Amino acid sequence: MTKENNLQSNLKIRPLSPVGKGLGIAAGDSLAQPLVGEIAAQGWNLLREDVSLPVAVLSESRLQHNLQWMKDFIASYGLKLAPHGKTTMSPALFQRQLDNGAWGITLATAPQVQAAYHFGVRRVILANQLVGRANMAIISRLLQDPDFECYVIVDSAANVEQLGQFFAQTGQRLNLLLELGVAGGRTGVRDAATRAAVLETIARYPQALALRGVEVYEGVLNDEAAIREFLRLALRDLMTLEAHGQLAAGAAILTGAGSAWFDLVAEEWAGASLGDARVLDIILRPGCYLTHDVGIYKASEARIQACNPIARAMHSSLLPALQLWAYVQSIPEPGLVILGLGKRDAAFDAGLPVPALHFRPHNKGRPGDEKPAPAPADWQLTKMMDQHAFMHVPAGADLQVGDMLALDISHPCLTFDKWRQLLVVDDNYTVIDAVETFF
Amino acid sequence: MTKENNLQSNLKIRPLSPVGKGLGIAAGDSLAQPLVGEIAAQGWNLLREDVSLPVAVLSESRLQHNLQWMKDFIASYGLKLAPHGKTTMSPALFQRQLDNGAWGITLATAPQVQAAYHFGVRRVILANQLVGRANMAIISRLLQDPDFECYVIVDSAANVEQLGQFFAQTGQRLNLLLELGVAGGRTGVRDAATRAAVLETIARYPQALALRGVEVYEGVLNDEAAIREFLRLALRDLMTLEAHGQLAAGAAILTGAGSAWFDLVAEEWAGASLGDARVLDIILRPGCYLTHDVGIYKASEARIQACNPIARAMHSSLLPALQLWAYVQSIPEPGLVILGLGKRDAAFDAGLPVPALHFRPHNKGRPGDEKPAPAPADWQLTKMMDQHAFMHVPAGADLQVGDMLALDISHPCLTFDKWRQLLVVDDNYTVIDAVETFF
Repeated sequence: MTKENNLQSNLKIRPLSPVGKGLGIAAGDSLAQPLVGEIAAQGWNLLREDVSLPVAVLSESRLQHNLQWMKDFIASYGLKLAPHGKTTMSPALFQRQLDNGAWGITLATAPQVQAAYHFGVRRVILANQLVGRANMAIISRLLQDPDFECYVIVDSAANVEQLGQFFAQTGQRLNLLLELGVAGGRTGVRDAATRAAVLETIARYPQALALRGVEVYEGVLNDEAAIREFLRLALRDLMTLEAHGQLAAGAAILTGAGSAWFDLVAEEWAGASLGDARVLDIILRPGCYLTHDVGIYKASEARIQACNPIARAMHSSLLPALQLWAYVQSIPEPGLVILGLGKRDAAFDAGLPVPALHFRPHNKGRPGDEKPAPAPADWQLTKMMDQHAFMHVPAGADLQVGDMLALDISHPCLTFDKWRQLLVVDDNYTVIDAVETFF
Repeated sequence: MTKENNLQSNLKIRPLSPVGKGLGIAAGDSLAQPLVGEIAAQGWNLLREDVSLPVAVLSESRLQHNLQWMKDFIASYGLKLAPHGKTTMSPALFQRQLDNGAWGITLATAPQVQAAYHFGVRRVILANQLVGRANMAIISRLLQDPDFECYVIVDSAANVEQLGQFFAQTGQRLNLLLELGVAGGRTGVRDAATRAAVLETIARYPQALALRGVEVYEGVLNDEAAIREFLRLALRDLMTLEAHGQLAAGAAILTGAGSAWFDLVAEEWAGASLGDARVLDIILRPGCYLTHDVGIYKASEARIQACNPIARAMHSSLLPALQLWAYVQSIPEPGLVILGLGKRDAAFDAGLPVPALHFRPHNKGRPGDEKPAPAPADWQLTKMMDQHAFMHVPAGADLQVGDMLALDISHPCLTFDKWRQLLVVDDNYTVIDAVETFF
């Protein structure tokens, strides 16, 4: 295993880990797993127990639906999309987002940008300040590629000073977006004095730094009126920067939108303009639409479907596309079912996984189910440990050790990062592809 | 990148990920990272900002201390150690545990066993029922190696039946441990009828299944008296199995102990015997002693130091050996400091990370600190998002964007699984090794 082999950036000819979890059993005595591009040829099927559970699976038809839904939504408003890649950190999914019209990919850290670049992404928003010598060195190295386009957030004069000194030394010019924040929120400039200090410091490094626009993350607010006001403030701020000649040459950028309130961002900013002399790219950054969930983002989606005219007119909504499958591991006492999945496999910070389907595999000497049945609503997870989940069911529920359950999830981000590869299945639960993650 | 290359099992000549987080910046323009065995030669130092933050680091001197501490503790009681490998899933650390006297490694799932085997572990306890066709196939394939020794937990006749049928078909014999549980606990047999059914089913597959002993996980209880009673019950149960001729040939096994109550297990079981005709291996399975923490396991350790005579006589205790380093990412308002680490980097289910050290790197035009200083106790994390932590500090605290913080953690298991590699540092924060994880 040479260094060069480990750098393989063609996702289809990368081999899956020989010792990963949630994979099929390769034929023969070898531990070797197929290359990603050979997965479909294996013919693995979940219901035939060809795959080691627990496993994380993506529904191909639902991924396609969600990709198309967001493409249509964004197009209806004439906006651009840079999905937050930190959700999946899966370059194969980044590529599908780009193939479905995304302008670029948003990322949270310098190593994430490096991973995205390595697998082919050439336009990114780094939605954080770029802090520290090694992190700046990572971005600087990528900027040696003239085809690589990168926008970085700033909210402090101290950071701008550090960036200015670093990139003056490398002879490169870094694109900056001024982040606006709200009191009690997360990052972002709150007051006029800080804003002025940031702008003054940027102006001292005209060769090394280029202010290109304004960025917000409205998700720190929980109230529609406050969010709309904040979004209008951001647009006015960008107009002020333009009016004062504080934007560098090139298209200006106005960007916001997490996965919960992207409809408001679209409504508030669609059609905004800086006049004929300046192209304005308005870029939304939701990350979770791709897989959606049945928890926090399902709740947001219900509001969007009820309130947003474009979403209503589309006559469909985002669909949960990521499920975990696990075995009934033990039924140690009536009403208590221990499942073979835990905090190592699923997010648990925004609601526990929700049993969605129940399936009894065929076993020697006893027939199984033909297809999965909906799990009753009174089968509920109450607790997860590292490798176990506690499911409470009514006494007498028809469950056996070895039965399979599919579980929907809440908070895709913290589920994806539990898996180095996820399997993509068709509607018959046959494995047709795999996607690697790079957290 | 061929399949065979991906199977490299010599940990020292594996290359680190070219796109991983928390790594040093390799020299030159290439993304390639050094081989693990070449790490020390890079001379990366945390305080010189040679490494991208956030990073997870292990203290070499503290690892050594903890390895020696547990080796001495176990030896004092004449017991054996099979540390729970699910904590770190790091074969390099498994090897150090084995080199320091561990009898074997405990694991939670079939893929974890496969990973440990692939990197050289030849004796494991799978501390769960082995459920599902693909998971059985994984273990069956490993058992083709006559040097591989594996013990699997059972608590239900249904699972024993499935195992019996599967391994009868492969012509192999699987070692079983009867798991005893407690009402309201997790897995494990609670009542005589279930126990009898399990034993009867085992007896029907004498060629395929071998009952070798008894297993408990006392960590589901919270009360010393109840734990001691449960441990005595387990020992009595093993004696009953022996008296009734229900154990297969070979050494018998009695195993328990998570990371919180291992002292009680040692006290209760040390010196136990099944008589001269049967070797009895008493095996403890703590996993978190290796890195310890400043949260849940620090609290357990205080009790152990106060109550256990052997631990008291050792005049030292386990030390926290795993820290996360992160930058001050933003100071958007007085008293609020946003750190560049989050739920993607640290466990958060048993207390948030605790600021331990503060360091200001040297920067052009301003001197930095010579060495890290203890972080004041009133710098406290109050919240984490996916990629950010909120730290509250007194107004006027001496902090700047770009300062570095080391944070201690609570719950090593859920911190390890956020990292594909951790860096090992000496007491000067120079990187001397790296360990990969295989979750």
